[in-house]
Amino acid sequence: MRLRNKPWAKDKIAENPQYVVPNPAEYKGNWKEVFGNENPLHIEVGTGKGQFLVGMAKQNPHINYIGIEMYESVILSALERLIEEELPNLKLLNVDANHLSEFFAKNDVDRVYLNFSDPWPKKRHAKRRLTYKTFLSMYENLLVDGGEIHFKTDNQGLFEYSLTSFSEYGLLLKYISLDLHKSDFEGNVMTEYEEKFSQKGSRIYRCEVKYLNEKD
Amino acid sequence: MRLRNKPWAKDKIAENPQYVVPNPAEYKGNWKEVFGNENPLHIEVGTGKGQFLVGMAKQNPHINYIGIEMYESVILSALERLIEEELPNLKLLNVDANHLSEFFAKNDVDRVYLNFSDPWPKKRHAKRRLTYKTFLSMYENLLVDGGEIHFKTDNQGLFEYSLTSFSEYGLLLKYISLDLHKSDFEGNVMTEYEEKFSQKGSRIYRCEVKYLNEKD
Ligand SMILES: C[S@@+](CC[C@H](N)C(=O)[O-])C[C@H]1O[C@@H](n2cnc3c(N)ncnc32)[C@H](O)[C@@H]1O
Ligand SMILES: C[S@@+](CC[C@H](N)C(=O)[O-])C[C@H]1O[C@@H](n2cnc3c(N)ncnc32)[C@H](O)[C@@H]1O
Repeated sequence: MRLRNKPWAKDKIAENPQYVVPNPAEYKGNWKEVFGNENPLHIEVGTGKGQFLVGMAKQNPHINYIGIEMYESVILSALERLIEEELPNLKLLNVDANHLSEFFAKNDVDRVYLNFSDPWPKKRHAKRRLTYKTFLSMYENLLVDGGEIHFKTDNQGLFEYSLTSFSEYGLLLKYISLDLHKSDFEGNVMTEYEEKFSQKGSRIYRCEVKYLNEKD
Repeated sequence: MRLRNKPWAKDKIAENPQYVVPNPAEYKGNWKEVFGNENPLHIEVGTGKGQFLVGMAKQNPHINYIGIEMYESVILSALERLIEEELPNLKLLNVDANHLSEFFAKNDVDRVYLNFSDPWPKKRHAKRRLTYKTFLSMYENLLVDGGEIHFKTDNQGLFEYSLTSFSEYGLLLKYISLDLHKSDFEGNVMTEYEEKFSQKGSRIYRCEVKYLNEKD
């Protein structure tokens, strides 16, 4: 993600607390209050400019969505989209995903989306990949039992790594597509990166994995 | 595999009991006797014309190999190669893989190779895929604890299916390559199908999966 310095981003974010939740730690264990309903909550980690979640929130009005993005200059674009669309079921958090446990309690979240996460191709950076075991453990601590991760990427190395990482962690691989745009998967909402890379002819990989219950 | 009727195949097989083991059920639990040593045993299910196992047996003289192929007319080509090469660590079985439990006891086998197995793309034929759960259970009953399956294919649908089938069965995905011939995997021995499909430009998929011990 190329970052442009946007000094007005901070102000704009502060002016829109109904969209970019200002003190998210206050709602830990209590996100239903923010949305004013009991609908399931799906979060996207590394939302970027928000195209995916805006599309999903329109497609699924009875699901609540939260986008996590750490850069003000990037989340600004998501915020601008959201102001235009006025979607009541989508909020943004301008925080670092490494600290998600400060903002979400066990059972707060029903599904985690990871889309085109930074690949960190060097082995010594493996710990930074959002599918590294410490992240899988963090997601487990905010998901419901049987919660899922839905993951898309164009990056072959990251996808290979992630499948083995999921397996090693004991997650169930429910669904795998090795060429999403030629598959029979329905209702796909494209992300910005997905549009860019698929236009260049890259394949898109996708999988759904599930944290197993004791009883499974 | 296109089958040509080769009436002489049966005779040639019968004439070479040192290569195509005639009464394999007799050696159940006792394959070390056949090879005359204590080396590990790796089997390939659906060997075809034997190029892979001949290459592997040459590359790894301290591993014993058995190729399983049900068609006489096909195993004939593997036999002819084997006669030429005189490899003491490679045998063939002219049997149907559905009956492997008649020929191998628990702990007889250290590794199962599946290469370019028939894809059986129709859903109603899923049970025939060599990575269907009943086959995974059969392999478990002949492998050592912690035994492995190494699987290659050009068939995207079969690979996607197999990864989820392995995961559902509780196998660990140790290694995945989504483009074997562009990966850093070393010592790859090509199968006949692998040569044919990669020349046509198909990607080759490969994975290694492991049956977990109690203690893992
Ligand atoms: C490659 S972009 C993909 C954006 C979007 N998901 C898409 O598919 O178009 C990755 C995004 O994740 C964000 N990101 C990376 N690490 C993060 C972290 N630890 N916490 C929050 N956001 C992060 C980056 O700022 C960037 O916007
Ligand atoms: C598509 S070919 C692949 C051959 C070889 N492994 C390769 O990669 O070139 C599949 C082979 O598996 C054999 N086969 C299929 N089902 C089998 C079974 N149930 N028992 C034994 N062999 C089988 C077929 O006869 C055929 O030779």
